[in-house]
Amino acid sequence: MKIGMIGLGKMGYNLVLNLLENGHQVVVNDVNPEPGRELAQKGAFAAESVAELVGQLEKPRVVWVMVPAGPIVDGVLDGLASLLEEGDMIIDGGNSHYKDSIRRGEGLRSKGIHFFDAGTSGGMSGAQNGGCFMIGGDKEAFGTIEPLFKDLAVENGYLYTGPSGSGHYLKMVHNGIEYGMMQAIGEGFEVLEKSAFDYDHEAVARVWSNGSVIRGWLMELTENAFSKDPNLDEIKGVMQSSGEGKWTVQEALDLEVGTPIIALSLLMRYRSLETDTFHGKVVAALRNEFGGHAVVKED
Amino acid sequence: MKIGMIGLGKMGYNLVLNLLENGHQVVVNDVNPEPGRELAQKGAFAAESVAELVGQLEKPRVVWVMVPAGPIVDGVLDGLASLLEEGDMIIDGGNSHYKDSIRRGEGLRSKGIHFFDAGTSGGMSGAQNGGCFMIGGDKEAFGTIEPLFKDLAVENGYLYTGPSGSGHYLKMVHNGIEYGMMQAIGEGFEVLEKSAFDYDHEAVARVWSNGSVIRGWLMELTENAFSKDPNLDEIKGVMQSSGEGKWTVQEALDLEVGTPIIALSLLMRYRSLETDTFHGKVVAALRNEFGGHAVVKED
Amino acid sequence: MKIGMIGLGKMGYNLVLNLLENGHQVVVNDVNPEPGRELAQKGAFAAESVAELVGQLEKPRVVWVMVPAGPIVDGVLDGLASLLEEGDMIIDGGNSHYKDSIRRGEGLRSKGIHFFDAGTSGGMSGAQNGGCFMIGGDKEAFGTIEPLFKDLAVENGYLYTGPSGSGHYLKMVHNGIEYGMMQAIGEGFEVLEKSAFDYDHEAVARVWSNGSVIRGWLMELTENAFSKDPNLDEIKGVMQSSGEGKWTVQEALDLEVGTPIIALSLLMRYRSLETDTFHGKVVAALRNEFGGHAVVKED
Amino acid sequence: MKIGMIGLGKMGYNLVLNLLENGHQVVVNDVNPEPGRELAQKGAFAAESVAELVGQLEKPRVVWVMVPAGPIVDGVLDGLASLLEEGDMIIDGGNSHYKDSIRRGEGLRSKGIHFFDAGTSGGMSGAQNGGCFMIGGDKEAFGTIEPLFKDLAVENGYLYTGPSGSGHYLKMVHNGIEYGMMQAIGEGFEVLEKSAFDYDHEAVARVWSNGSVIRGWLMELTENAFSKDPNLDEIKGVMQSSGEGKWTVQEALDLEVGTPIIALSLLMRYRSLETDTFHGKVVAALRNEFGGHAVVKED
Repeated sequence: MKIGMIGLGKMGYNLVLNLLENGHQVVVNDVNPEPGRELAQKGAFAAESVAELVGQLEKPRVVWVMVPAGPIVDGVLDGLASLLEEGDMIIDGGNSHYKDSIRRGEGLRSKGIHFFDAGTSGGMSGAQNGGCFMIGGDKEAFGTIEPLFKDLAVENGYLYTGPSGSGHYLKMVHNGIEYGMMQAIGEGFEVLEKSAFDYDHEAVARVWSNGSVIRGWLMELTENAFSKDPNLDEIKGVMQSSGEGKWTVQEALDLEVGTPIIALSLLMRYRSLETDTFHGKVVAALRNEFGGHAVVKED
Repeated sequence: MKIGMIGLGKMGYNLVLNLLENGHQVVVNDVNPEPGRELAQKGAFAAESVAELVGQLEKPRVVWVMVPAGPIVDGVLDGLASLLEEGDMIIDGGNSHYKDSIRRGEGLRSKGIHFFDAGTSGGMSGAQNGGCFMIGGDKEAFGTIEPLFKDLAVENGYLYTGPSGSGHYLKMVHNGIEYGMMQAIGEGFEVLEKSAFDYDHEAVARVWSNGSVIRGWLMELTENAFSKDPNLDEIKGVMQSSGEGKWTVQEALDLEVGTPIIALSLLMRYRSLETDTFHGKVVAALRNEFGGHAVVKED
Repeated sequence: MKIGMIGLGKMGYNLVLNLLENGHQVVVNDVNPEPGRELAQKGAFAAESVAELVGQLEKPRVVWVMVPAGPIVDGVLDGLASLLEEGDMIIDGGNSHYKDSIRRGEGLRSKGIHFFDAGTSGGMSGAQNGGCFMIGGDKEAFGTIEPLFKDLAVENGYLYTGPSGSGHYLKMVHNGIEYGMMQAIGEGFEVLEKSAFDYDHEAVARVWSNGSVIRGWLMELTENAFSKDPNLDEIKGVMQSSGEGKWTVQEALDLEVGTPIIALSLLMRYRSLETDTFHGKVVAALRNEFGGHAVVKED
Repeated sequence: MKIGMIGLGKMGYNLVLNLLENGHQVVVNDVNPEPGRELAQKGAFAAESVAELVGQLEKPRVVWVMVPAGPIVDGVLDGLASLLEEGDMIIDGGNSHYKDSIRRGEGLRSKGIHFFDAGTSGGMSGAQNGGCFMIGGDKEAFGTIEPLFKDLAVENGYLYTGPSGSGHYLKMVHNGIEYGMMQAIGEGFEVLEKSAFDYDHEAVARVWSNGSVIRGWLMELTENAFSKDPNLDEIKGVMQSSGEGKWTVQEALDLEVGTPIIALSLLMRYRSLETDTFHGKVVAALRNEFGGHAVVKED
């Protein structure tokens, strides 16, 4: 197939490599011309504008959008909507909020454009070598783009999930689970690290990656991480987050579902952004008030 | 009554003042002679040794032990056991683990000595001006010492709780609740502090202390704390703990009772003892491994 | 003063009694005519419509709105806005979301009407006998209505909190703390209830209400509850919630503040709405899959 | 090698099959003669007593003990200690508490017997086809039994972890992580199940098992479980636990490590054992007390 890719960041760039590897023709574009030039060396066609990108495609045109979630997606989609025609197709492969995807799907459908919200998992290596895709959108039209996902994904690694929004929703929940799993792994190693025993973290991650109940890709990545920095001395435990964990908790609140582990995993990330807390100050002050317990003074 | 008090720290000292105020005769002793000298100025008799203290009392002797929980209590009780006689009475007013109190009660009972585990709440001001007491031990003998608690406590502020251990058990759970309440208050003020509004923390604590659902002593103490340091700039949010919260969680685990709030309040205290965490490092490293997300480097 | 009260439910009704008791004239209205008739017996003037209510007041008119949060408030405010004039004043004493209050304040301000968002705490008894009020809105105009709050509140029980929204925001956080405190108290009594000791829950709540660190109104209410039903055998542990706890958590997520206790207290309420959980089924199924552990079959 | 296996339950039985498959001679014994008879059909030698089992082995004898954790292990070890000689070796492959393993290692060492605590993961299928082993004990002697683990484990699936106790400690923490991962997966599917979308749980677990960040054995088992019962209608969400999760939390408390996710995962298991809670009753009663909120009555 011939496909357009807008957004050549870590994920988009690797997806293009994957598509080229699988024999597809890819027209690429990014606000930064550099990755497009590199990909042109590898067989992609680097369009200088979205209009040129669209012009290079044949009907029904398929454009994959892989840009940061939020208003940037709306900007790109608005531009595309004015260039594309009835029957053309847009895939949003980023981490958009599912409510945005429902809204965008409705807007584009009214113009006859098929919109797919494709949650993408597997990291950069998955993007390049075979990832996992959860795709919501028009079921009839999905058949046209299914071959792309068949090629991009590992075996059994893509799923048509239902109407618009269902793909990003599933990706959102996937990330919620991911938060919980990562926090659980982190806590386990923290116990080991503080224990009276002297474990080799990398060796532990390796043995747990082979045959144990908790084996999986995250444990393999843990092994990788420890192989580079045995005690993670070089990095701080600041846990950033990029939205889906928060959205999962917000969704759980709206559904009145108790998701304590996912919620706490998120809150511990927020906690990690600070070196001290106001609630801690209040508790310390209270202990001092009623029991005369010593407080730790600020330097 | 005439009563002995061993241990003249923050709590014991104030209890002696309270007892004297209520017309009791108090023979005091502490490893540090200073507080005994002070109390002697105020009407107590300062014994130079436990033996002298015991010698000053009349049968049935009543000795209140107010020393740090743990082996120190065992040391004092062993010493007393060799000096006291059948029918004499020991009150452990400290924060002993209830299982220790059950064991100690059994040991002393075998020698004919009545043992009472008296959980004491209300802080230093309560000790001096009227506190809250939860007393386990021999029900028959309790009548003898009940007048003491009637005088030391505020109205309705003491309770005979049942057999040995039940007093300290109740105090333990009291403190578990206290952990949860304090953390809840702390979190609320943290939200306020980070909000877009510009609240006066002291004024907030004051209004919440008057007529609100969450009014109570802890809120009044919060007001006090903010009155001295409006944003708690002078102290760190390091939340120490002295045992009962941990014991409550351990007990909950043994009873298979879900106590998420008490457990989390304790774990957040542990979290506050560190400026960085190993679990955070693992999570940050994993995010970098799969998604190429930037980590914060150690300085 | 002369004041209008729209909404004569549990809270509004009791506030009217309180206002009458303090010598104010109150014009009342509710979609249900019954409570208005009752209050007319006690000295209020029962208006048959909002228009009549407004007509009975004198400029600057003061109308207190005490109706369920959400679109009903908007409906009432829209109606009032068309009836009131520049300089008149509306107090929303309900549990509105603070963002709604900001929006409403702006809308009414554009018409010259002063809007106050008054968070109200203290329950029905507080409404009647002296409650706690946190009031956001136009500072200049607050002086006009301040005497009302002085009369309705217990001493030091009202606070002008800043611009529109700040009153309801403070009430929201108050309720978040309340969730945490209540859950902590509940968990403590659950430990007691499952312990090897045989505590009298009412007596425990009473002694904790007198002199302890955790004394306060919630503990007194706990005593009341146990006095009526010593083991709460008559009720189920279904913990409903009415919004503010959820909003506090949502706000904490938006502020990236770790509020584990408040969040968990909310999630445990959601958990209590179900007798079984899907996550439990998944975990049970997994244990069976890897370890052959028995599952509990549905009946 | 020739090896004895005491305990032929789900795990022991499958380990024997694995050993036989790998060409080892196995002398087996269990209090229940049935599995021994079965294994005898497959090439094992079924000893009628522990003494006969020991008699069938050659020095240095190697006996693997695979019996339920707790006093049963002590009973078996005591029996073996009286039958074995200096230089013989015992492997405890069960889920013993690491402190017991330290104690047992010391006791047996004083008799010249080498003791190994081997944490075993991978479930029944791992036991039979290749599992994961974490082995603590005497490093010198480990070389003698290492070939066993090389054969029983998948590649890179065993690790010598250090002195006595370190193997079971690592397995304990492994299970703590497992609790957190399982709860996270369960919560994610609960959100899906309650969402507005109509997901096929099995298909979701399958796509997440292929190429996603959260892929791993637990997700594959989730797929298996849903393939048998698409909505888990046949089972209840009662989450039993067998000790290691609790021990991990207890250890975290002793180390003062904040492990909120592991702790909460455990507490949610306890919560699942009940259809109603006492804390819920207290909270519901309190809401009724202060706000007149309706309670749900017991039937």
